[in-house]
Amino acid sequence: EKISVGVLTVSDRCSTGEATDESGANLQSLISSGELFPGTVDQYLCVADDCSLIIKTLISWCEVHKLQLILTTGGTGFSPRDITPEAVKKVIGREAPGLSVCMLTESLKITPLAMLSRPVCGYRGRTLIVTLPGSKKASEECVRFIAPAIPHAVDLLMDWKVPVEKTHD
Amino acid sequence: EKISVGVLTVSDRCSTGEATDESGANLQSLISSGELFPGTVDQYLCVADDCSLIIKTLISWCEVHKLQLILTTGGTGFSPRDITPEAVKKVIGREAPGLSVCMLTESLKITPLAMLSRPVCGYRGRTLIVTLPGSKKASEECVRFIAPAIPHAVDLLMDWKVPVEKTHD
Amino acid sequence: EKISVGVLTVSDRCSTGEATDESGANLQSLISSGELFPGTVDQYLCVADDCSLIIKTLISWCEVHKLQLILTTGGTGFSPRDITPEAVKKVIGREAPGLSVCMLTESLKITPLAMLSRPVCGYRGRTLIVTLPGSKKASEECVRFIAPAIPHAVDLLMDWKVPVEKTHD
Ligand code: NA
Repeated sequence: EKISVGVLTVSDRCSTGEATDESGANLQSLISSGELFPGTVDQYLCVADDCSLIIKTLISWCEVHKLQLILTTGGTGFSPRDITPEAVKKVIGREAPGLSVCMLTESLKITPLAMLSRPVCGYRGRTLIVTLPGSKKASEECVRFIAPAIPHAVDLLMDWKVPVEKTHD
Repeated sequence: EKISVGVLTVSDRCSTGEATDESGANLQSLISSGELFPGTVDQYLCVADDCSLIIKTLISWCEVHKLQLILTTGGTGFSPRDITPEAVKKVIGREAPGLSVCMLTESLKITPLAMLSRPVCGYRGRTLIVTLPGSKKASEECVRFIAPAIPHAVDLLMDWKVPVEKTHD
Repeated sequence: EKISVGVLTVSDRCSTGEATDESGANLQSLISSGELFPGTVDQYLCVADDCSLIIKTLISWCEVHKLQLILTTGGTGFSPRDITPEAVKKVIGREAPGLSVCMLTESLKITPLAMLSRPVCGYRGRTLIVTLPGSKKASEECVRFIAPAIPHAVDLLMDWKVPVEKTHD
């Protein structure tokens, strides 16, 4: 069964059309191809670095559209307008720091600039929300780091009983 | 001098007797054997995934029983009923993220599913509280990862002056 | 262009003159030498483990002196008087967990006692604040771990457009 996914690009420049949303397009492609895990992109939106709009969109995707996984891309850096982490913290009910630590430590093996990323991961009800970096390369790297655990995460949130093979035995 | 330890298993199924508390039993055995550090199990309890009961037990163990270390096992995952992290956050006065990062990064070397753990570590007064995963295997792995630092942690919390050998020299 | 830096040593013993502030002196030397990145030490102070004094100093250095980077050393451990993390959390507007995770994971390769460090990193306005351990050796190790990303961090906070070479391309 395919995981219902939303991709939210946070970028002033993409939202005005000044820049092409390569990261968001690539994430949609990776999901639709099924190469990370069985999934369908049921929602996609590109918004400006606007905290209340990000929050509103995430809550709608969680509560109305009932998505199982939301990937955000962009707005997690050090620029004054980067407020994605602050927005996601307001939306999630419970934090999942292991996903953030995983993405940070794996990314740091690639470049020290990864230490400037400010990821936030967690869930609101049964929807898992993961913030990814804004660049196409970094967002793909990060989603690949966490992909192995996503199906099990979604199953746990749906409260399905799932056989966990080759994990902790 | 032995560290005074409490083991708190958080599990609906164990608390009703539906399942055997293998993780809690194993942690008690590891502590009592002294193979991790000199310690005695002065408190053990198995409770359901009940936030207020977890909080009440932890506070009692800190303030009345004055334990030096509390290990919880269970309830730190993604299931809707997993609220151990939320309970512990309410109890601790100061957070100790280094213990959580250590357990996550070492566990991630074993299995990517470790990224779904939601550890919280910190202290309330002089009592160090560490959340461990619910499975017997994972909880043992994690307590072994942090064991080398536990005696020094307890000494610092007790405000004893302790010679720190072979650490940062 | 040199980064404007403040070094704040948090230590009861150093503030009374009972002990020499070796860590603070060494950090100043490392900054002034320019070997970590182009920088000047524009502020230095040694304070006791006094939460409100730490907060007051940090806020002044951010808002009045407009420093670009503040390094604190000391008070991030498990001793009852170690409240630097709690003070810094109150000062920063946004958290930068990647810097903390980087310092923890790199330090853990050196000694398991690094898991007892409680780093907090983040920024208030355009000032980046990084807590370092209190020992001369550990504080130097940690500032060296994060130094490669500091110039880019400062540039992002200043909202300058900077070519990012050899990072995520
Ligand atoms: Na200290």
